[in-house]
Amino acid sequence: CVCVRVCVCVCIGPTICTCVPLLLLICFSLQEKKKTELCQELSLQARDLRFQHTTSLTARNNCIILRMAALKAILTQESLMVLDFRGLGLERWLVLELAPQLASQTHSLPFEFRALEAILQHKVNTLQARLNEVEPVILDTLESLVDPKILSADRSKLHVLLQNSKSLSELETDIKMFKDSMLKVLDEDETVEEFCLTKWTDPRVFEESSLGIDHAEEMELLLENYYMQAEELGNRARELKGLIDDSESVIFINLDSHRNVMMRLNLQLTMGSFSLSLFGLIGVAFGMNLTTAFEDDPRAFWLVTGFMFLGSGLIWRRLLSFLGRHLETSVPPRVMQTHTQTLCLVICSCKVHST
Amino acid sequence: CVCVRVCVCVCIGPTICTCVPLLLLICFSLQEKKKTELCQELSLQARDLRFQHTTSLTARNNCIILRMAALKAILTQESLMVLDFRGLGLERWLVLELAPQLASQTHSLPFEFRALEAILQHKVNTLQARLNEVEPVILDTLESLVDPKILSADRSKLHVLLQNSKSLSELETDIKMFKDSMLKVLDEDETVEEFCLTKWTDPRVFEESSLGIDHAEEMELLLENYYMQAEELGNRARELKGLIDDSESVIFINLDSHRNVMMRLNLQLTMGSFSLSLFGLIGVAFGMNLTTAFEDDPRAFWLVTGFMFLGSGLIWRRLLSFLGRHLETSVPPRVMQTHTQTLCLVICSCKVHST
Amino acid sequence: CVCVRVCVCVCIGPTICTCVPLLLLICFSLQEKKKTELCQELSLQARDLRFQHTTSLTARNNCIILRMAALKAILTQESLMVLDFRGLGLERWLVLELAPQLASQTHSLPFEFRALEAILQHKVNTLQARLNEVEPVILDTLESLVDPKILSADRSKLHVLLQNSKSLSELETDIKMFKDSMLKVLDEDETVEEFCLTKWTDPRVFEESSLGIDHAEEMELLLENYYMQAEELGNRARELKGLIDDSESVIFINLDSHRNVMMRLNLQLTMGSFSLSLFGLIGVAFGMNLTTAFEDDPRAFWLVTGFMFLGSGLIWRRLLSFLGRHLETSVPPRVMQTHTQTLCLVICSCKVHST
Amino acid sequence: CVCVRVCVCVCIGPTICTCVPLLLLICFSLQEKKKTELCQELSLQARDLRFQHTTSLTARNNCIILRMAALKAILTQESLMVLDFRGLGLERWLVLELAPQLASQTHSLPFEFRALEAILQHKVNTLQARLNEVEPVILDTLESLVDPKILSADRSKLHVLLQNSKSLSELETDIKMFKDSMLKVLDEDETVEEFCLTKWTDPRVFEESSLGIDHAEEMELLLENYYMQAEELGNRARELKGLIDDSESVIFINLDSHRNVMMRLNLQLTMGSFSLSLFGLIGVAFGMNLTTAFEDDPRAFWLVTGFMFLGSGLIWRRLLSFLGRHLETSVPPRVMQTHTQTLCLVICSCKVHST
Amino acid sequence: CVCVRVCVCVCIGPTICTCVPLLLLICFSLQEKKKTELCQELSLQARDLRFQHTTSLTARNNCIILRMAALKAILTQESLMVLDFRGLGLERWLVLELAPQLASQTHSLPFEFRALEAILQHKVNTLQARLNEVEPVILDTLESLVDPKILSADRSKLHVLLQNSKSLSELETDIKMFKDSMLKVLDEDETVEEFCLTKWTDPRVFEESSLGIDHAEEMELLLENYYMQAEELGNRARELKGLIDDSESVIFINLDSHRNVMMRLNLQLTMGSFSLSLFGLIGVAFGMNLTTAFEDDPRAFWLVTGFMFLGSGLIWRRLLSFLGRHLETSVPPRVMQTHTQTLCLVICSCKVHST
Repeated sequence: CVCVRVCVCVCIGPTICTCVPLLLLICFSLQEKKKTELCQELSLQARDLRFQHTTSLTARNNCIILRMAALKAILTQESLMVLDFRGLGLERWLVLELAPQLASQTHSLPFEFRALEAILQHKVNTLQARLNEVEPVILDTLESLVDPKILSADRSKLHVLLQNSKSLSELETDIKMFKDSMLKVLDEDETVEEFCLTKWTDPRVFEESSLGIDHAEEMELLLENYYMQAEELGNRARELKGLIDDSESVIFINLDSHRNVMMRLNLQLTMGSFSLSLFGLIGVAFGMNLTTAFEDDPRAFWLVTGFMFLGSGLIWRRLLSFLGRHLETSVPPRVMQTHTQTLCLVICSCKVHST
Repeated sequence: CVCVRVCVCVCIGPTICTCVPLLLLICFSLQEKKKTELCQELSLQARDLRFQHTTSLTARNNCIILRMAALKAILTQESLMVLDFRGLGLERWLVLELAPQLASQTHSLPFEFRALEAILQHKVNTLQARLNEVEPVILDTLESLVDPKILSADRSKLHVLLQNSKSLSELETDIKMFKDSMLKVLDEDETVEEFCLTKWTDPRVFEESSLGIDHAEEMELLLENYYMQAEELGNRARELKGLIDDSESVIFINLDSHRNVMMRLNLQLTMGSFSLSLFGLIGVAFGMNLTTAFEDDPRAFWLVTGFMFLGSGLIWRRLLSFLGRHLETSVPPRVMQTHTQTLCLVICSCKVHST
Repeated sequence: CVCVRVCVCVCIGPTICTCVPLLLLICFSLQEKKKTELCQELSLQARDLRFQHTTSLTARNNCIILRMAALKAILTQESLMVLDFRGLGLERWLVLELAPQLASQTHSLPFEFRALEAILQHKVNTLQARLNEVEPVILDTLESLVDPKILSADRSKLHVLLQNSKSLSELETDIKMFKDSMLKVLDEDETVEEFCLTKWTDPRVFEESSLGIDHAEEMELLLENYYMQAEELGNRARELKGLIDDSESVIFINLDSHRNVMMRLNLQLTMGSFSLSLFGLIGVAFGMNLTTAFEDDPRAFWLVTGFMFLGSGLIWRRLLSFLGRHLETSVPPRVMQTHTQTLCLVICSCKVHST
Repeated sequence: CVCVRVCVCVCIGPTICTCVPLLLLICFSLQEKKKTELCQELSLQARDLRFQHTTSLTARNNCIILRMAALKAILTQESLMVLDFRGLGLERWLVLELAPQLASQTHSLPFEFRALEAILQHKVNTLQARLNEVEPVILDTLESLVDPKILSADRSKLHVLLQNSKSLSELETDIKMFKDSMLKVLDEDETVEEFCLTKWTDPRVFEESSLGIDHAEEMELLLENYYMQAEELGNRARELKGLIDDSESVIFINLDSHRNVMMRLNLQLTMGSFSLSLFGLIGVAFGMNLTTAFEDDPRAFWLVTGFMFLGSGLIWRRLLSFLGRHLETSVPPRVMQTHTQTLCLVICSCKVHST
Repeated sequence: CVCVRVCVCVCIGPTICTCVPLLLLICFSLQEKKKTELCQELSLQARDLRFQHTTSLTARNNCIILRMAALKAILTQESLMVLDFRGLGLERWLVLELAPQLASQTHSLPFEFRALEAILQHKVNTLQARLNEVEPVILDTLESLVDPKILSADRSKLHVLLQNSKSLSELETDIKMFKDSMLKVLDEDETVEEFCLTKWTDPRVFEESSLGIDHAEEMELLLENYYMQAEELGNRARELKGLIDDSESVIFINLDSHRNVMMRLNLQLTMGSFSLSLFGLIGVAFGMNLTTAFEDDPRAFWLVTGFMFLGSGLIWRRLLSFLGRHLETSVPPRVMQTHTQTLCLVICSCKVHST
């Protein structure tokens, strides 16, 4: 019987066909007829082999039908059939790892346990590999984005972050779907029992199980084990998401802080420019082609020049200290207005006085 | 009996009436009386045909009464009645797709399975079509909004994003409601049994089912299948929502980064302007109509001009390097104040010295 | 017996008392004694009439005691008593709508179904009316706030948005509480049975129900119907909340974009001012009262003036193109510094050269 | 027996000891031995009196052991023992309110109902008082922070908001823990039965209960009542949290709007300053000590001055209208560059022309 | 038998081996063979000792196998074996605390209760210690970051906050996993029974338990106790997360407020500079080498100078009051434009008039 199936596999085309009778690699993409034959042989319905969901795990008529993303497989009591396996990057794993693993006889557990364990382990490994790929990139990118010295976020790093953040979301969804499909089996004791294929067919095993080790309990432990591993991966992914959110807040605070510091410097310089403009106006006034009484006074030049520089220096200093006080206390900014008005008046009066 | 119902359909008005006896298209909007007649014929209550919820799926008195948004239908063991079907864009699907599908005899399953599958598939397809419509628009818009080169977000694209984001929310609600209505049926085994209409009426089928294939299990698989498909759509919609949120953060960081870069440039130029103003004041001072001792010194012009340009260049350079150091270290900005004060003093003393 | 109760109602004071014996409007706010009497008559405990929760629905001793916000009522098999109904704006609904609805005999269902349906319908209508009031205001406000042309958000509209957003939160809580109180009844089959008052008292009905229509199932359908309507209202409210959040993000991006555009314009003008200041310094230098060799050269004026204007124009142009390149590429802003330094050197050397 | 316990209480130290035998106030903080004695007397284990959780409610060996934050109590069929009651601000409530409440005989329910009701009511009142304290402060603070007129958020108010927001979080946790401890009892019917202490010890009551009023159902109603009250408090706290979030968004939009308005004003003034600088350069040019042909032309002064003022006014006006158009349409800011270049060219050509 | 096991432990290498026969410290990292021996001795499967999950707690074949992060242990009825205990910082606790605790005979409970309590208490203490380490650092950092006086967030503190926020997330995950593993045991009564090792092996204890104290109930209390403690830690961690979020909002509002205040000051100074430029142009005009009629008028200098200073002062004042009004009302900023235009016209006309 197993032999026939291998023939099925061979006659489809030049597929990779290992000689381990426990693992059948079948390619249905060419002939729909073969699919129907397989259904009849296993007493399955056509719908059972449609694999409409990206992650599913069901027991049907003493077979376990499962799909883990690209991997579609039917697991019977004696063999594992992998369907449509080509072009998915799975060949290497199938031939070099899965086949020897299934062939090894060290396990004391029935075949379906070994096959299921190998597939679930592969799935969890794939998820873990994806997380391991995304995690360091995200951590590095965040590390460099959060650096308080940088004034503006590096855009190429933002792009990298966004890409990896998207991958992380997809990974989270995949983990969730894997967990859900496991949970659906684990939630009902009957379904778990159905997964123990050997128990129902081999009377000898059935008796044994009633004495010592319980198959259903073993199957539950096996599934729970991978459920927990997926749970831990999910936790890591969630933590990573949280770290991205926290880091983004810190990036925003950093950028805002930089802006505030620059704005303060800018304001201080604007104050300086204002002071220079104010007292520069005196110079402009004396530069007019109009008659003043000081044209010939040799001290006048130094007096007026000194007044200009010292005056602007003093006003600037006052403005700076006003700014310092203003930002520390929470006085409403209305005060500024009156302050500058008194300033104006002082200057005017001082001007009048000098007249 | 079936025939009579077709007559009911015909006598209402010029409705589209296919000749497949399995599918009845009935329009109640004109005559309330017909509705009551139908209720009596099917032993339903008036309330059952009110269709108050946008998505519902219930079994009542050996009928399945369902509503999927616009589509209102009653499914009996032998026929599917679609009510108030006009003006909803469903005619094409009803006549060209649903009717042949129901008429085909290839299926080995009873009529109610085929009809339910067709309707649920149509619903899932509609949801998927809506997601497929919204998804590429959102991805494109985000792609162009996230582009780090742009200084300000394109407002028309923001509008497009907001519209599609709203559609996505509505789609998520619809998916959730579809899933809830499926779950309500799936959660109770009795309800699933009630959905197997043929099982309860056809004694032959009932016997069969006790032997081989179980109707209730088939129905559960069928409903679960569409539940899972809706689940996957929901996952995709949720991922898309997450991507919009992540992208918005990146857009904000981009805009903030641009602003910081511009503010730094602005600050550097303000520093230059301040240096020019400061040393320009010397020029203004020498331009005053006041007597200095240098009027006739031919070297004085070049000395003072050189001092102005070189001095402002040097001060600018110092301010720039101060800014560079200031932004990298986290020294409090108070230093600036003392720095500028020493600057003032240097200038003053240097001025005094030159006197 | 019913008559006596009406008398109770009348003797309390000048309350509105309809003559339909099915609906009793009772006002307890004046005399506590009457409350105790009513308790004894219905064999209820004092605590049952305290109505401590804003939304509750319980069956007690063959009575349904319910409170829906302002409406407090006791529903027995034969009559509906509305307590403390005054000053709540319910009079109109009670007299004009509820009373005729209860009196109508078209329904085939027992009295408690009709009364419960009327009250729950009223509650759902109230919730829907509140949502219908809030929804268009929020949509309009968001529409005008999201408008990309506006530079700053209209504050009065923000206030309107905040008020309605608050109302929406309250509405969401009310819907949730209504759903919870329905769910508490629906979750236990016994409670649903207790709600069918007639079933337990009228032996004739009880027998009937064992044959044909099941009272408990009818009651479950009735309650589920209103639960689902509340669910749909809750979905709409949740979508609206999501829309507000999305719109706020868009408003922020809009405001930030506007700011970036204005900052770029500002920076471009600052560049122009800087160029003018730089070359204006040449003019200021020639304006000093110092001896140059060019005083009498008639071409000197045009040469220097032309150099000033053309030079500042060229420098501005270079700065603008530098800005354009700088913002597009992600070069670190350090380049600016060296750029300006070379600029200074060029100017200086050019000055020296002209000497 | 009760008397002995009062003695225990007295001999510990100068504790407040009321003479109502139903309420015992015991202070264990001094002697560990007394605790062991009490355990033995009530047949409890030492661990039962450790009160490790801040909120707990359990039945153990015909006692109800409860802790509500500071209040630790053991409730037997005949008396309520409050442990370690000192220094917690509970004395007033214990002596003035709880004692008379327990002593009053108006209740028809057994002692443990009255005591439990009093304690739970006290707990809910405490929670409500905390919410009532926090709510108006938060509402007031938000009201003043959201005020669109203010330019910058008042920092002292932000501090108040943060403090109260923290209190609100703590309150939410306490409400959740109270609800959880109630729910743990309510979820299992057995536990509720264990809470009816009298039912199990007093045979007379047990018989009664089998006839009329059911103790367990009364207990369930009592606990559910306080659960619902806590639920309503939780809803109010959640709404308040939502309002804080919404208000923060509005505050951000307000601050951003103000900034945009100020930036527009700043940009308009910068445009004015630029225009003045540009045409001021003409004045500076004519101020140079170089020979022009116009020195003696009496009209030249007015022509040049008029050109300066009018020119700068016109350019400013053009820039302002350019800004207006620029911000309304979504033209990319590149246009600005070409615009200013043509401006430069116009000025240059116009200059050349005037030569 | 116990002795042999100690030998196993000793012969592995120079491990710390206490002489209390109740606690075995075993190091498997060197020899895989020993692991298999142990499995056989305890009738466990190899898989049971793989400890694949960071937190697990299971009963298998009358042993409790648990892992709490670094601590891997097998608990039998008579002894506690700690596996691979080296290099984890646990030696101190194992030798100095756990060993005496297990050896003490004061407890009346069986050995497995004492051992389990010691380990769970250690785990909860570890979690609490981690929270106690993180909490004050976060509170301090937030306290100093929220300080309204600071203009820009201290970057080193942000870094500290981010690190601790990450630790908090990890702690939350660990607490959640601990709670989940406890809950998995508590959810099924059978599993709790399996944990009572003594009950199943010691017939004397079994009889006792059927009379007085119930082992399973004691075990449930014990586990529930630690579950509740973890729950409280989880609540505290969640509150802390909420506080970080709230504080970040306040930091943003603070930074934005500071920026608005600085921008207002900047705008006020820009207004001043603009006024000075505008009236400085008059000075520049009079400084031109062109003929005016006022060269020799001695009052002209003072008149023009006074007009310059007073005019710029007045214009500044008007602009400031315009700004004040503009920011308070929500007038659209378009008014500014017309305002400045009338200003220009006034100046021009006033200029013309003076001609």
